[in-house]
Amino acid sequence: MKVELLREYMSKMCDLNHAVQLMQWDLKTKAPKNAVDTHIAAISTLSTESFKMSISDQVKDFIETFEHDEKLDDIMKKSLKDLKRTYERSKNIPEKLYNEYTSHTAKSEMVWEEAKRNNDFESFRPYLEKIVVYNKEMAAHIDSNQNVYDVMLDNFETGLSSDKINNLFEELKKGIVPLVESISHKERVDDSKLLGNFEEYKQKELSEYILKYIGYDFDCGRLDKSEHPFTTGTAPYDVRVTTRYDKKDIKSCLFGVIHEGGHGIYEQNISPSLIKTPLAVGTCMGIHESQSRLYENILGKNIRFWEPIYSKVGEIFPEFKAIELELFHKAINIVEPSLIRVEADELTYNLHIILRFELEKDLFTGDLQVKDLPQAWREKMKKYLGIVPKTDTDGVLQDCHWADGSFGYFPSYALGNIYGGQFAAQMEKEVGTIDYLLKEQRLDIIKDWLRNNIHRFGKMKTSAELIKDVCKSDIDVKPIIDYYQNKYSRLYHL
Amino acid sequence: MKVELLREYMSKMCDLNHAVQLMQWDLKTKAPKNAVDTHIAAISTLSTESFKMSISDQVKDFIETFEHDEKLDDIMKKSLKDLKRTYERSKNIPEKLYNEYTSHTAKSEMVWEEAKRNNDFESFRPYLEKIVVYNKEMAAHIDSNQNVYDVMLDNFETGLSSDKINNLFEELKKGIVPLVESISHKERVDDSKLLGNFEEYKQKELSEYILKYIGYDFDCGRLDKSEHPFTTGTAPYDVRVTTRYDKKDIKSCLFGVIHEGGHGIYEQNISPSLIKTPLAVGTCMGIHESQSRLYENILGKNIRFWEPIYSKVGEIFPEFKAIELELFHKAINIVEPSLIRVEADELTYNLHIILRFELEKDLFTGDLQVKDLPQAWREKMKKYLGIVPKTDTDGVLQDCHWADGSFGYFPSYALGNIYGGQFAAQMEKEVGTIDYLLKEQRLDIIKDWLRNNIHRFGKMKTSAELIKDVCKSDIDVKPIIDYYQNKYSRLYHL
Repeated sequence: MKVELLREYMSKMCDLNHAVQLMQWDLKTKAPKNAVDTHIAAISTLSTESFKMSISDQVKDFIETFEHDEKLDDIMKKSLKDLKRTYERSKNIPEKLYNEYTSHTAKSEMVWEEAKRNNDFESFRPYLEKIVVYNKEMAAHIDSNQNVYDVMLDNFETGLSSDKINNLFEELKKGIVPLVESISHKERVDDSKLLGNFEEYKQKELSEYILKYIGYDFDCGRLDKSEHPFTTGTAPYDVRVTTRYDKKDIKSCLFGVIHEGGHGIYEQNISPSLIKTPLAVGTCMGIHESQSRLYENILGKNIRFWEPIYSKVGEIFPEFKAIELELFHKAINIVEPSLIRVEADELTYNLHIILRFELEKDLFTGDLQVKDLPQAWREKMKKYLGIVPKTDTDGVLQDCHWADGSFGYFPSYALGNIYGGQFAAQMEKEVGTIDYLLKEQRLDIIKDWLRNNIHRFGKMKTSAELIKDVCKSDIDVKPIIDYYQNKYSRLYHL
Repeated sequence: MKVELLREYMSKMCDLNHAVQLMQWDLKTKAPKNAVDTHIAAISTLSTESFKMSISDQVKDFIETFEHDEKLDDIMKKSLKDLKRTYERSKNIPEKLYNEYTSHTAKSEMVWEEAKRNNDFESFRPYLEKIVVYNKEMAAHIDSNQNVYDVMLDNFETGLSSDKINNLFEELKKGIVPLVESISHKERVDDSKLLGNFEEYKQKELSEYILKYIGYDFDCGRLDKSEHPFTTGTAPYDVRVTTRYDKKDIKSCLFGVIHEGGHGIYEQNISPSLIKTPLAVGTCMGIHESQSRLYENILGKNIRFWEPIYSKVGEIFPEFKAIELELFHKAINIVEPSLIRVEADELTYNLHIILRFELEKDLFTGDLQVKDLPQAWREKMKKYLGIVPKTDTDGVLQDCHWADGSFGYFPSYALGNIYGGQFAAQMEKEVGTIDYLLKEQRLDIIKDWLRNNIHRFGKMKTSAELIKDVCKSDIDVKPIIDYYQNKYSRLYHL
């Protein structure tokens, strides 16, 4: 068999996925109201087609033929390895189970939306219980030797066990909880002056300016509006970001855009040599979040980031001319316990994630029942953040990830912070301090460093390999803790 | 074999085409600059997949199994008939020839663009010659019993031979040429007052207003900007139209939008019962053009169309308050010979089409050689329009349809005018005069009549069946000629 056949096969899978990505983007940004059902049907047909290709006998043949073929180049070797991993993990899932599960999560997402709106956990409970059961069953088909939650973590973060994550998160907690505690005794800065009435087209103008400023390439992407911000596309030539506009508060749009810009820059800088293989994507969710959070927080919430371009904000929104950069900087860095994850500050965000990780873990060991989730949620909120949601809408029902079955996804967010801390520290060693680079507007040096060390490899390296190659170390919580302590000690005069 | 299998098969083909349509729309409206190549590759892969499905052994089985199955419902019978027609016409085309032809036309389109830019027919000539040869060869594989040009006409207008079209066009010429001649002796109205500086977002606002006014449904569609206006989508729930904006002249956008709106209304009103079959599209190009041209010309260029909404134009563009409706109406109905088809008026437009039809026909009978096309073009322009292009850019090189191999496509435009004349006359008999309906703003009655008589059937009826069922007659040139004579006699006091 010729390797060309394998190339063609992968290429066809990529083209199917290309179409799926575009339809999904369209669904969330452009599709007319009544097109939703037919759009979803087409997405489902093409996804199934691609899934079937990933577990076909043809793939098995490819694996058997080429697995030990030393003549394959590196890209093809890694591609085959990726195909094999998907094949091994999916081949034993009974089609009936897969279809039942897919249609159940589609339903449960709708039930969850309604339940969230009505603060009615009980209506959602049986659906969530069933999702947990399905996930246990699927995990057994994927790998019966691993514990269930580890199998699910593996969907998002290859090779990291829940024990390992637990250790990392314990360390993270130890660094963060005292910091949050100290800050809570300080006076809160008054940020009410930052609120106003900000027209959407002006927010868009500023967003585009900032995206270009950080190095997002509009020849290979675009910015649109959607209910929840996201990044999607077919890397590297078409990577689209979205944002939402809060009329009263530009912070939500600004940092959303910088965050998605970080995801976008990652995918735009994947090596074109990986196109038409399964490797032309970010290697995993954790590394992806490391890039978006590095841009959003470590760069975007640094006063030196804004110094050279703050006048641009005032140009587009003259009301900001009356707001001193120092106040703006303090306002975007307010640390305070809050109920909603996606609105949390840089520091307490981690605690929101740790809470979810611990609950997920207990759900799958059997230490926690779905019916006891709301109470467990409240207890952990009290413990880590000192506040308790009055409703489940602001508590256990706030996120969509459990409703759509994505258990194991949450940890990636905090892992992203840890990885981002490591990368930032290493970058500072190699090309200069972030303060200096930002002040000198050398976002290009930052992007080049990230591209050379991380982006261009796509899925050629796992997260562990990337961290080892770039930082010469294992996963390490210390750099992000150092960064937090350093930053917030100065900001809050701790 | 169960009929469910046939349904699933058609459904999958529809979903593939759904994705292709969306990617093509995206390519022309939203895709970032650097995404073009990967987008085209994905479009090509999915189109090929759909084409392969249309000539597969599975389709052959379906035809053999169900062709004489009286239990099939009407929709399935017609769907199977359509599948069969495609199968029969495509199955004998050698794959090698098909691929060669596809890649040749892709290349020749690029060569044509360059040739048009440089007024250099000679550089394009060998490519066009090869396209003619390829088309002859393909036609022989499709149906060796028919003459070549008839086979090609059949791609766009099922069942109409070139002889029949020739007769229709002779009649059309006889009606039009004297009218144009008479008008040429009249003074041209001064329409310079209609030119100005019209901001794009205001043109968009007016376009949306007018689309809604004529009955285009934004819950099942949207309006975007593109270099050339077009309508696409997946009927009936997602049918998108585009327009372009000429800063100096709003006419181009206004009538482009009404034209595409006509196409869009057609597809939006196809019966939902045809979804997931090959029948949920307009039945052929001629009927499609009949709808767009009926809206654009017979309705949109009638003074009664504008009377109730002309104040809206002045609201959005205050400069129009100084322009009397009578002048506006005269300006949008100026008849004068011109070089460029897409800018021609309602009347002379037909002559541009007839000229192209006659040249196409002669090319395929062998009466005309490609090398003699430019001269033949000039002679016919002189004969029918009394003017001669100074360059081939404004002559034989102006359209893309020959470069992309779409011989047989042009006649649909003029057939659309003929059909539109018949439909309009019949509608007036059944629900009241167009003048009256427009004056009373009963665009809903017009749309309902078109939906009930034409739109909802999609491809369930051929153009001949539609005309017979709606107008109780064959194709008939008289109604459109009567309309032209009536309209232009009054307008120009002939």
